[in-house]
Amino acid sequence: MTPKISQFLAEEKPATPCLVVDVDEVENRYRALQVALPLARIYYAVKANPAEAILTRLVSLGSSFDAASWEEIEMCLNAGADADDISFGNTVKKVGAIKAAYAAGVRLFVFDCEEELNKLAQHAPGSKVYCRLLVDNYGAEWPLSRKFGTTVESARELMLKARDLGLDPYGLSFHVGSQQVETGSYEMAISRVAALVSDLSEAGLDLRMVNLGGGFPIRYREDVPHIDDFGEAISTAMKKHFGNALPEMLIEPGRFIVGAAGVVSAEVVLVSQRGREGGPRWVYLDIGRFGGLAETEGEAIRYAIRTPRDGGQTGAVALAGPTCDGADIMYEKTHYELPLALESGDRVELLGTGAYVSTYCATRFNGFAPLAEHYI
Amino acid sequence: MTPKISQFLAEEKPATPCLVVDVDEVENRYRALQVALPLARIYYAVKANPAEAILTRLVSLGSSFDAASWEEIEMCLNAGADADDISFGNTVKKVGAIKAAYAAGVRLFVFDCEEELNKLAQHAPGSKVYCRLLVDNYGAEWPLSRKFGTTVESARELMLKARDLGLDPYGLSFHVGSQQVETGSYEMAISRVAALVSDLSEAGLDLRMVNLGGGFPIRYREDVPHIDDFGEAISTAMKKHFGNALPEMLIEPGRFIVGAAGVVSAEVVLVSQRGREGGPRWVYLDIGRFGGLAETEGEAIRYAIRTPRDGGQTGAVALAGPTCDGADIMYEKTHYELPLALESGDRVELLGTGAYVSTYCATRFNGFAPLAEHYI
Repeated sequence: MTPKISQFLAEEKPATPCLVVDVDEVENRYRALQVALPLARIYYAVKANPAEAILTRLVSLGSSFDAASWEEIEMCLNAGADADDISFGNTVKKVGAIKAAYAAGVRLFVFDCEEELNKLAQHAPGSKVYCRLLVDNYGAEWPLSRKFGTTVESARELMLKARDLGLDPYGLSFHVGSQQVETGSYEMAISRVAALVSDLSEAGLDLRMVNLGGGFPIRYREDVPHIDDFGEAISTAMKKHFGNALPEMLIEPGRFIVGAAGVVSAEVVLVSQRGREGGPRWVYLDIGRFGGLAETEGEAIRYAIRTPRDGGQTGAVALAGPTCDGADIMYEKTHYELPLALESGDRVELLGTGAYVSTYCATRFNGFAPLAEHYI
Repeated sequence: MTPKISQFLAEEKPATPCLVVDVDEVENRYRALQVALPLARIYYAVKANPAEAILTRLVSLGSSFDAASWEEIEMCLNAGADADDISFGNTVKKVGAIKAAYAAGVRLFVFDCEEELNKLAQHAPGSKVYCRLLVDNYGAEWPLSRKFGTTVESARELMLKARDLGLDPYGLSFHVGSQQVETGSYEMAISRVAALVSDLSEAGLDLRMVNLGGGFPIRYREDVPHIDDFGEAISTAMKKHFGNALPEMLIEPGRFIVGAAGVVSAEVVLVSQRGREGGPRWVYLDIGRFGGLAETEGEAIRYAIRTPRDGGQTGAVALAGPTCDGADIMYEKTHYELPLALESGDRVELLGTGAYVSTYCATRFNGFAPLAEHYI
């Protein structure tokens, strides 16, 4: 939690639940990533948090943008981004969205199958395209592997076909999975990409770009490798596999840039044991899985929690949201301890919640309003 | 799908994705439940779908309402419900919500622990209260057991304490889990409730009400027992365990009343195999787990799907939503077959989606607007 957020919460006491994001910290994170990977162009993954204040700041820093939909492209344009600096990075796009993006000047599109490539050839003629490869997501706390990406063999064929269709066969992409904590996870993917680039070069097709995706982790309850270690591992792997013929490098960070810049302020609604001796206390907050903490599904992302009673004696708890839904449980299997003195009405903070929270929030499940947001 | 919905979709061709609910069918389902359980008072579970058109129709039919929050209570009042016909059915309530409900005239509250009982005594003095028991959710496709409810021993103590605190110790409740397909599931819970009622009666406390919760299933891809079979099983169990001293009976149906009355109309965005020979085709729709189909988590609720190509040859598919999120997969393990001719741009219908869809929908994940809704 940055000093600015602490001060805002102390002075403003905004109604809970709410998300508070320190936009200066977003800038700090962006700059740290630039330092760690100076050769990579940063395409901010808008889906992590598309708030105007964040997009505007990133535009001012010269960031590019990875958009998941036409609507996200519009948000970037409205924030002042150039269409040239936007990648339409969703492998699954409606024809109407491709047309709208193309009409707005977007010329960079991803695909991972022949059907999508044909759509792009027809509705975004001449555009730069890159093919997403399927790679192992080992080490990622929020894996993405099954839904996206194609095989090396198929990518080879499709890139050649892209040329035949009049598109610009620009490069290849992969994604090692979100909140990837293994710095070594990139190398295997890079080696496969390099082999395919070399193979296609022999076939007369010179790709110019590698999109390394995102996945850079932030600290939740446990330390993660420093971003410089990821930068070092990636640079080393790129040099090893591409030698002096380094392609353009793109990265698509979302969580790394905004995650650590945000804090959710919530209220304890109830603490109870419900007659079950020896069981944990159940702590119910006014935010849960359907109020924005969707990444606690399967207890995957484990937020650190601060309470006003910290320092006192603690005991095991299960943590749940405020709805009548039995699935609205954040942590039951993961060991969490909170102060024994914690009680209904206490304000608590969930740290590292700047990414993938505000937009996941349900419109009005159980009647609760969407999460309030403050960008400071 | 009712004829009215078919006609609406054919004539209006509303933009996808959208939810279409036949409000007359909501009425039919309400009446069917009245016939099946004539002695029970129906408290519609507002969280299943709080649309004004549904609440207004149910008010006109004399329904009562089970609200999960102060916001849902307000929706009921705005739709014309009397405060006397509203139960504040969430065991986890903010003090502010209790106060607002009490000020509006609500006098029926649930609880499942001492802390909540104390809140009610202080902020809703003299109200009727009922204690939720923890029961087994075996047989439910969307179980609720761990988060709510207390032990029989603790409920006994708390009901006696409720009297001492000046509250009206009205009854007991339980919930066998949502989409409960075993008609026998109610009996064990009823027998435990009856034993506790009898025990408390000996202690000088006469409870007057049993809230049987909801859970009544609807047909998705497989037949479920008829609602009359549940009515019969419940009536038989009540007579067996309560004899001639039948208490008031409350039920809290949500899915049963609105689920079958709604259809989601969606578009196929992409069909692809992505180079993996022998694997299923992946069918990507413009609605997914974050666009409203949250109950497909763990592939729990398995919607039936209609396509314009039905009747042709079919093949195995995995089904996913339109976002860049790897968790946005509806069905990958469950065997689904769709026509081989299905392609990008086709409109498909997901049946039985009137409940727990519109409100679960994310505010703008990946930039996508919330699900459009049509009540006809």
